[in-house]
Amino acid sequence: MKSLIQDSNKRKIGILGGGQLGLMMILEGRKFPFTFYVMDEPNAPACRVADKCFKLEEYKEMINQVDIVTFEFEHVKEEALEYAKEKDKLFPNINTVELKRERWKEKMYYKNHNLPTPKFYVAEDGEEALRILKDQFNNVGVIKQSRGGYDGKGHYFIKGDVEKYSFIKDMKCKFVVEEFVDYDYEASIIAVRDKKGNFKVYPPTFNYNEKGILVYNYGPLNDDRFKDIAKRLADSLEYVGTMGIEFFVRKGEILINEFAPRVHNTGHYTLDAAFVSQFEQHIRAISEIELGDTTLLSYGGMVNIIGTDNVPYEVLKFGKVYWYGKSEVKKRRKMGHVNVVGEDLEDVKQKIDNIMKLIYPEGLDL
Amino acid sequence: MKSLIQDSNKRKIGILGGGQLGLMMILEGRKFPFTFYVMDEPNAPACRVADKCFKLEEYKEMINQVDIVTFEFEHVKEEALEYAKEKDKLFPNINTVELKRERWKEKMYYKNHNLPTPKFYVAEDGEEALRILKDQFNNVGVIKQSRGGYDGKGHYFIKGDVEKYSFIKDMKCKFVVEEFVDYDYEASIIAVRDKKGNFKVYPPTFNYNEKGILVYNYGPLNDDRFKDIAKRLADSLEYVGTMGIEFFVRKGEILINEFAPRVHNTGHYTLDAAFVSQFEQHIRAISEIELGDTTLLSYGGMVNIIGTDNVPYEVLKFGKVYWYGKSEVKKRRKMGHVNVVGEDLEDVKQKIDNIMKLIYPEGLDL
Repeated sequence: MKSLIQDSNKRKIGILGGGQLGLMMILEGRKFPFTFYVMDEPNAPACRVADKCFKLEEYKEMINQVDIVTFEFEHVKEEALEYAKEKDKLFPNINTVELKRERWKEKMYYKNHNLPTPKFYVAEDGEEALRILKDQFNNVGVIKQSRGGYDGKGHYFIKGDVEKYSFIKDMKCKFVVEEFVDYDYEASIIAVRDKKGNFKVYPPTFNYNEKGILVYNYGPLNDDRFKDIAKRLADSLEYVGTMGIEFFVRKGEILINEFAPRVHNTGHYTLDAAFVSQFEQHIRAISEIELGDTTLLSYGGMVNIIGTDNVPYEVLKFGKVYWYGKSEVKKRRKMGHVNVVGEDLEDVKQKIDNIMKLIYPEGLDL
Repeated sequence: MKSLIQDSNKRKIGILGGGQLGLMMILEGRKFPFTFYVMDEPNAPACRVADKCFKLEEYKEMINQVDIVTFEFEHVKEEALEYAKEKDKLFPNINTVELKRERWKEKMYYKNHNLPTPKFYVAEDGEEALRILKDQFNNVGVIKQSRGGYDGKGHYFIKGDVEKYSFIKDMKCKFVVEEFVDYDYEASIIAVRDKKGNFKVYPPTFNYNEKGILVYNYGPLNDDRFKDIAKRLADSLEYVGTMGIEFFVRKGEILINEFAPRVHNTGHYTLDAAFVSQFEQHIRAISEIELGDTTLLSYGGMVNIIGTDNVPYEVLKFGKVYWYGKSEVKKRRKMGHVNVVGEDLEDVKQKIDNIMKLIYPEGLDL
């Protein structure tokens, strides 16, 4: 272990999933002398910049050929994750994915580790979920399918109008029933931890989500409590890589909504407002390269481009456009984002506001 | 011309040359929905991230298939430049390359446009060059081959020891004979100009060259005169794209040493210290996308990694390593660079100093 280059040369990293997160991982990871393989369809964004792209069914071939396997998305082909784990190449560890496969496990994990999270109950089926909602929360709460929910899919926000959700009664899957959190604002933090346990965070940000999808975020939000929670979560998981943790803040109380065992949408602003981005940090962490500085060079923020390719040129007056090159525009699909930097939080917010009006002149349609 | 994305989708950019400058152009240009083709050997750095790579002899095929042609290096296959010009696809214009093919033309251009440059004479052959050196400069000056000189190749710095250079007498090529400039420091500026004539510069930097190769640079250097000269040069050339201009500063007097009609080594620091990098600006300028902001987010600098792959891990404590992935380490070859940001100029200089000691513990061997 003498020279970064001599040690790293010809090391191969395999990424499961080739969406925008994989794309940005490779673009940022190209600073190091690594070879990048991707498992996804050939027209996936990350495949355009990978050294080689493997189809989903070729996952074994890819995993056998690389030294390190990571993923850009936790809901990726399970056999591939399992196989990479079996070969001792998977970072972060599969325990993090297991928590994400079943929301009830994630929630129980918080509870068992004294990590603050909204009050919840686990229901074995829809009937029980509705009963809990009534008995514990007076029919005001959130019923979430335990499996397969992300970007707000399979989440039902019920505010007394329980009759509209009677279909849940017949659903035979497991649910988590949560209190409805009337938060003051949403926030998140991007953390990174390496194999030796070194741990860093970027400053937290204020987030704005709509229908379960992040619309924009900005920061820094100065509150050290987020870092403490992130450290406890990352250490307890023996986490390796970059992770994102989303929070509700209610009357000064911080509650974990969920975490993502990967680079995170609320960390895209680090591409411009920080010296070392969340993507480069992830590549460093999984390949045993010392973590970089996480202090911000500037106030920053981000606006997602969702379900549209309407990006007026004027947007460039306020920010930097990142387009992912996905094969087609679809409703609720993240097509790109716009990064913003500014002199202070107000400046960033003003730019975000201008960008929102330009990209969504009729308002968001999610 | 309504949406950046709708207009740009499927637009193809061809880059002549696939070295590190082409690599960084593509990595930074991937924000836009362009397709990038490269003309170079398949193992060239830029080919690893291009959508397609064409061999040198396939230049016509590539140029026919793309909408815009640019180059990462002015001393690239001349037929390809000419063919791209003929097809009306070349940016920046070939006039800029013509000035670089023959140093005497570049120097005459400065003279004819009242742009400050060291005193010089043009010699038809080596014999005349040596005579001019004696008659005009009392045997203290620089004799430069007019053709093919870059990174200090074909430059002879003569300080009275003229007998050591008697071999020049037999050389039958054209030369430029320049005064020897005993400068206080070297500097450069990165400028960008678009097709409509919009013009921007990054703040100038202090540069340190050794044997004609840039070793490190840092900035900003606050002096508006560099910008004025850059604007006059870029406007007079009707330049489109990013350019770098190198200067000598002697007792407060600014003299152009040379310019490069492309993204420039002294602009690598803009990848980290500025919001929009010189590479993204170049892609914007040639594809009619509004230029981005050039104000710096931070003090910044860069150290070149030349002729070695000795990059101790400790370097990462002070900066961010960019490795180009060239096929082999060679003396005087630029293998990568390290970008630095800092709180002030002193902080940046200190980090550069630390990096220099780590990468070149025995000193530079150029």
